[in-house]
Amino acid sequence: MGGDQGPATVVAGISRSAKKNPDVAFILHGPRDELERLVAKRRNLAGRCEIRDATDVVHMEDKPSHVMRHGTETSMWSALESVRNGEATVCVSCGNTGALMVLSMVRLKKLPGVNRPAIAVLWPSRNPHGFNVMLDVGADIRADAQDLLQYALMGASYARNGLALERPRIGLLNVGTEEHKGRAELKAAHDLIAANAEKARFDFVGFVEGGDIPGNRCDVIVTDGFTGNIALKTGEGTASLIGDLLKEAFEYTPLSRIAALLALTSLRRLKKRIDPRRVNGGVFLGLNGTVVKSHGAADATGVSAAVKLAFQLAQSGFSEKIAARLAAATSQLEDMKNEKDVAE
Amino acid sequence: MGGDQGPATVVAGISRSAKKNPDVAFILHGPRDELERLVAKRRNLAGRCEIRDATDVVHMEDKPSHVMRHGTETSMWSALESVRNGEATVCVSCGNTGALMVLSMVRLKKLPGVNRPAIAVLWPSRNPHGFNVMLDVGADIRADAQDLLQYALMGASYARNGLALERPRIGLLNVGTEEHKGRAELKAAHDLIAANAEKARFDFVGFVEGGDIPGNRCDVIVTDGFTGNIALKTGEGTASLIGDLLKEAFEYTPLSRIAALLALTSLRRLKKRIDPRRVNGGVFLGLNGTVVKSHGAADATGVSAAVKLAFQLAQSGFSEKIAARLAAATSQLEDMKNEKDVAE
Repeated sequence: MGGDQGPATVVAGISRSAKKNPDVAFILHGPRDELERLVAKRRNLAGRCEIRDATDVVHMEDKPSHVMRHGTETSMWSALESVRNGEATVCVSCGNTGALMVLSMVRLKKLPGVNRPAIAVLWPSRNPHGFNVMLDVGADIRADAQDLLQYALMGASYARNGLALERPRIGLLNVGTEEHKGRAELKAAHDLIAANAEKARFDFVGFVEGGDIPGNRCDVIVTDGFTGNIALKTGEGTASLIGDLLKEAFEYTPLSRIAALLALTSLRRLKKRIDPRRVNGGVFLGLNGTVVKSHGAADATGVSAAVKLAFQLAQSGFSEKIAARLAAATSQLEDMKNEKDVAE
Repeated sequence: MGGDQGPATVVAGISRSAKKNPDVAFILHGPRDELERLVAKRRNLAGRCEIRDATDVVHMEDKPSHVMRHGTETSMWSALESVRNGEATVCVSCGNTGALMVLSMVRLKKLPGVNRPAIAVLWPSRNPHGFNVMLDVGADIRADAQDLLQYALMGASYARNGLALERPRIGLLNVGTEEHKGRAELKAAHDLIAANAEKARFDFVGFVEGGDIPGNRCDVIVTDGFTGNIALKTGEGTASLIGDLLKEAFEYTPLSRIAALLALTSLRRLKKRIDPRRVNGGVFLGLNGTVVKSHGAADATGVSAAVKLAFQLAQSGFSEKIAARLAAATSQLEDMKNEKDVAE
């Protein structure tokens, strides 16, 4: 209910998904009357869509702490509840990111051993499969070395299950690729991640730079949520500026207008390749249950892309795989600590 | 001497500048024989180019600390020396950024009251004048609230003298525009910058996000050097990826190849608008003297753009203006502190 486009767009989106995927079913959360009216208009949703009445809505400007205390009647709360009690396999929301993160942490709880959950996004890149994974892009504004290691482990699992990469290449975002550069916690994280690469079946390429986020040096970019959020929005803003300038350029002369007509298919292909709606959906990692956060402004195509991603992750059983991976790394760290204690 | 393309490219670049601007003259630093041979090939440099013999070179992989101790015979050292002793008005270098920053700080010294100097770049944007200023993009990997205030003051001066903006709009980079978001030092910087806006003749628009870096909400984006460096390289990488995909799209079918021919002028216009070579040059702010850092991989066009920027800044007497502005802000801060002490 809390997305910028309202529930009609969400219903239009899930209707698209339902057409494409016969195995997906939905539980919608919000005012029953309104949702029943919207669903009734889409014949292909008949029998595939339950509704849970929720009268309240989390608004974009609501503070997460306020939602936590007073949000029990909201559609967001109800949606997470359905994952918590096992009715739904995964939650998709277009709402307030901060509130969704805090509610997810409180209601679904963090996986054992996870200190800070993370939000991972897919990023158009020069990789053969077309995308890189970046995390964290804004679940938390800080991360220590131990958190960055967990992001690497969770990101590797995501790349394996979401992008089907057997042995993902992990990079740690820094201001230079030389090992002497950057903040102290990054140097510590560098060594921790390197030590875990073999056991967790990923390749660690070391430090990477901003230019590698859309590049082909690695598949997963690990960073703190402050830096990741700035990078994500800078990339989106740059792409959007270039797109608009391109449009302007093609409208400049009669000749260029003809060119635009001739190149229409090629330009559409390019647009599709870098269209953020096609990779719509940040995934919350490190929780007991999967939550996919769609863009607040997502249209029906965007909602449908988020549902597709949610379905893939749910089917791969990826939440359980991350839990197992983190448990292994945690016990390894404990062993290392104990050995050190014994040695001392 | 230490740029990726070697001295021939630098000489080709200053030759372009010399053609366009009859008021510019050069002092070149490096091995005399080699430079004399290169300069002799360019007739328009005759009589406008002195040479200072410097036998050693700072390489891209040299650590700044090593250059500081053993670099007295390098061309970089010699170039900064000519600014220090007043022979040159401004220094332009394509070399190792870290070494150039450290040498600049040690040889030119920081302006009174400056804690951390900053590197400022111009960024293609939706602004009517086509560019935003962003700083710091990598002089230092951290910045406290006081440093961020100084970046705001220096960035405002740069926008006034480099972009001719009477009353620049300053934004502070954060992960959200709400005042309760972000790190503690950002909240403190927010209040400090707001308190100085009126006296320093700029408008403070408050927190801005990554998407505003190429946007039109502000003219100057203030951030720490770690975040700024990541954002800069993410933006460059994204633009470069889109450019390559665009090229691919136009080569895809015979029809799109014809379209590319028809749209050639329009596409060139676009390319020129976002060409990083046109705005080549990070400016070191906060020192006794102006230093312009060109891209290491700059070609002749890039070198010439950096020289143009250096000339503009030197002519506006902008180094002196920044010094005056910072002195005023520092004395204001002292006054505030004293008033507070008296009140307590």
